[in-house]
Amino acid sequence: MSRITAASNALLQGFELPEGDKTYVKILDAGLALFIEFGLRRTTMEDVANRAGIGRATAYRRFADKDQLIQVVILREAKRELDSIEHDLKAIDGGLNRLLESFVLAVTRAHAHPLWRRLLTSDSEMILPFFTQKIWQMMAFFRMYLADMLERVKKEEKLSDLSTEFMAELMLRLMQSMLLSPEGVMNPNDEAAVRKVAEECLRPLMKG
Amino acid sequence: MSRITAASNALLQGFELPEGDKTYVKILDAGLALFIEFGLRRTTMEDVANRAGIGRATAYRRFADKDQLIQVVILREAKRELDSIEHDLKAIDGGLNRLLESFVLAVTRAHAHPLWRRLLTSDSEMILPFFTQKIWQMMAFFRMYLADMLERVKKEEKLSDLSTEFMAELMLRLMQSMLLSPEGVMNPNDEAAVRKVAEECLRPLMKG
Repeated sequence: MSRITAASNALLQGFELPEGDKTYVKILDAGLALFIEFGLRRTTMEDVANRAGIGRATAYRRFADKDQLIQVVILREAKRELDSIEHDLKAIDGGLNRLLESFVLAVTRAHAHPLWRRLLTSDSEMILPFFTQKIWQMMAFFRMYLADMLERVKKEEKLSDLSTEFMAELMLRLMQSMLLSPEGVMNPNDEAAVRKVAEECLRPLMKG
Repeated sequence: MSRITAASNALLQGFELPEGDKTYVKILDAGLALFIEFGLRRTTMEDVANRAGIGRATAYRRFADKDQLIQVVILREAKRELDSIEHDLKAIDGGLNRLLESFVLAVTRAHAHPLWRRLLTSDSEMILPFFTQKIWQMMAFFRMYLADMLERVKKEEKLSDLSTEFMAELMLRLMQSMLLSPEGVMNPNDEAAVRKVAEECLRPLMKG
């Protein structure tokens, strides 16, 4: 099992996605489509059931409430993005190159994702606390994950003396800021600008 | 007029603080005390007038509404902090040293300010959008301001080839992330940790 898959599995924690359950997948697909179209707050479980072509009671047998549905829809999208990044990284040689490219891909793709865009505009009262004051658990998880990747890179390439935790948190904080405030010189709309952050800020700090 | 004073004056834009008007100052002091004690949402203009020992009508002759009072109270605190930072920087020699110290002071003091702490807990629904999605105007102003400082430093010391705008935005984005998510390795509670960001991340990137 690759590390990114391990991370996304850890992300999914208790949630086993029963992909074989067609109704379950239909509900997730309907939820995703409606959340992107109308946002979280304006979508009800009834809307989701209708879009999925099932009864409300059936929907509630799969998901205790809308919050649980939201969580699973978001986790599934996160997992998809991580899998797709992992797939695209296969072509890249070298641990540090690969790590920096994962930064570029994560920032540009998360920013471009229609669900992220919709949540930032329609559900910012939920999204902003989660990605600032309540980010800590998620940040700690990804910091550990990236620090672990950096430790492995260190076995192959010489890295700087900065602690891997420090480097990891630097990546995550820049990512956080660019996604929440997508403007300026470091604009996640502009892949070249994100790559510049990776090449001219992260690489020189990380390289031994 | 020093640059930090110029910046804070620019920050204050149309607001001339009529410090000679004792009633005006009394209202600001009462507003600040109540905002720190109860937050913005839970404080009314009537509370402020009562605490200031004046009538509501008198308060409304100075401030059109609570929003205007909030703005002036916050701007006055920002100006005070900038003035105090400027004062403490006088002892420091060298443009880059001074710039990096201003980063350390700005982060640690903003984080420790009782108004900032209260707003983050009691008024996050107002504060979070302002410091993320709506930060752009403020970020553009401070980026210009810091880039200008960096251009002046460049005349005395050799700096790296990174654009001054890029360096300035890097400082501001790290500051933003540390203030909104004050935990982890880069914790603004810990001055040594903030200084480490300045010395081990910003300095090597900026130094020529």
